[in-house]
Amino acid sequence: MRAPSASLVVVGNEVLSAKVVDENGPWLAERLHQLGVELRAISTVRDRVEEIVEAVRRERPRVGWVITSGGVGPTHDDVTVEAVAAALGRPVRRDQRLAEIYRVIHHRVRGVELPEAGLRMADVPEGTELAGDPTFPTLVCDGVVMLPGVPRFFRYQFDRFAPALGGEPFHLACVFISVVEDQIATALGAVAAAHPGAELGSYPRFDDADHAVKLTVESRSLTEVLSALEALLAVLPPGAVVRITRPGEAAPPG
Amino acid sequence: MRAPSASLVVVGNEVLSAKVVDENGPWLAERLHQLGVELRAISTVRDRVEEIVEAVRRERPRVGWVITSGGVGPTHDDVTVEAVAAALGRPVRRDQRLAEIYRVIHHRVRGVELPEAGLRMADVPEGTELAGDPTFPTLVCDGVVMLPGVPRFFRYQFDRFAPALGGEPFHLACVFISVVEDQIATALGAVAAAHPGAELGSYPRFDDADHAVKLTVESRSLTEVLSALEALLAVLPPGAVVRITRPGEAAPPG
Repeated sequence: MRAPSASLVVVGNEVLSAKVVDENGPWLAERLHQLGVELRAISTVRDRVEEIVEAVRRERPRVGWVITSGGVGPTHDDVTVEAVAAALGRPVRRDQRLAEIYRVIHHRVRGVELPEAGLRMADVPEGTELAGDPTFPTLVCDGVVMLPGVPRFFRYQFDRFAPALGGEPFHLACVFISVVEDQIATALGAVAAAHPGAELGSYPRFDDADHAVKLTVESRSLTEVLSALEALLAVLPPGAVVRITRPGEAAPPG
Repeated sequence: MRAPSASLVVVGNEVLSAKVVDENGPWLAERLHQLGVELRAISTVRDRVEEIVEAVRRERPRVGWVITSGGVGPTHDDVTVEAVAAALGRPVRRDQRLAEIYRVIHHRVRGVELPEAGLRMADVPEGTELAGDPTFPTLVCDGVVMLPGVPRFFRYQFDRFAPALGGEPFHLACVFISVVEDQIATALGAVAAAHPGAELGSYPRFDDADHAVKLTVESRSLTEVLSALEALLAVLPPGAVVRITRPGEAAPPG
């Protein structure tokens, strides 16, 4: 049973050179949060084997799941699968089940046989599990989930595999206040130190919203959230609270 | 003179837990590209000293500039400056010039004296340069540029410092084609191998655009771009090219 925590590795020269804006990171952060899987890092690296290998090797011991985005197509710059295999110390082998799946998809979509170059997409780390939808499977090996970079396919393959991630939901409380961070920094630090089981966040705004700062209290333990929330409300200056969102209530945007 | 390359470290529990979508990464990627500074990685990490230290230490030998986003405010979760100091092996010292700047800003904006907790923002790695706008300076130490997470301030402080980054512009050509990746993967790989001085990219689309794939050829050397572009056009199937954007022409979106 792997821990419900994850690290995302985005393989993308195109993101770093601003040719496209990464949509998969923000989408995955939101989805993992809903599922109660803690996202601990996002590493966007170039399409280079050694950089992907390093990121996967570095992140794998820290989290239950490493999720990669991109670099799984048939062209020369698609090196993610090769790099994941190297990071795991596994050889790359052609998976005949996967080759057949891609042949079927290609024939259905394009109406012609899949060229040999396209079969490169069936070369995966030995022992790779074909999870999720058997007609468009999610590739998983040793806790590394290799997803396509195209957002539509990324989301589809992630969602089909998501139940296996073993998430436990987070509980969240938000306190919207009218005073600025300087005035509550010391008190907030004391509450955070006294409640290590909850994560306290402080998000200032500099626009015309009804509040100056949004404070958040979050934990997988509801008791921890309620206890830290109570402590927080006790130290805020009188009249500072604009409104509160308690665990289970929908958090308004902002 | 530092190399015109950069790595961004985004310090942000709030990005990882999907409380906010990071705007600074995409903005910086675009801006660095315009400036001709190569962005090699984006690492989004939690607000934890040891994780920030590790990211800064890892990235610094690889690039001319490490840019951090966020974690420079006055609250308990603002630990970036402390972490950067640790990564550089420098002590944290209160900078009296910076303290005075923050006192002036605070008094002007809030009309009251800056509380003691706010002065924490003037504690920086010893030797930190106050660059850019002297009334709202950009903090730079040993090639690490420490920027605020609030997008408006991030952009302001970055742009005031940007001329010092030493960028050289990239040249880009785009070839929009009507055939799918499978059909050109082998040829594209051969062109890439024969032109190591240019970066070739392949970006498929799965919508109703006028092209199936956008191919890009990019380099700081115009000669390399033109030579790789010529080789690429020579190997594409007859009739595959929808249109071409040559270096210096505006690239249409998509």
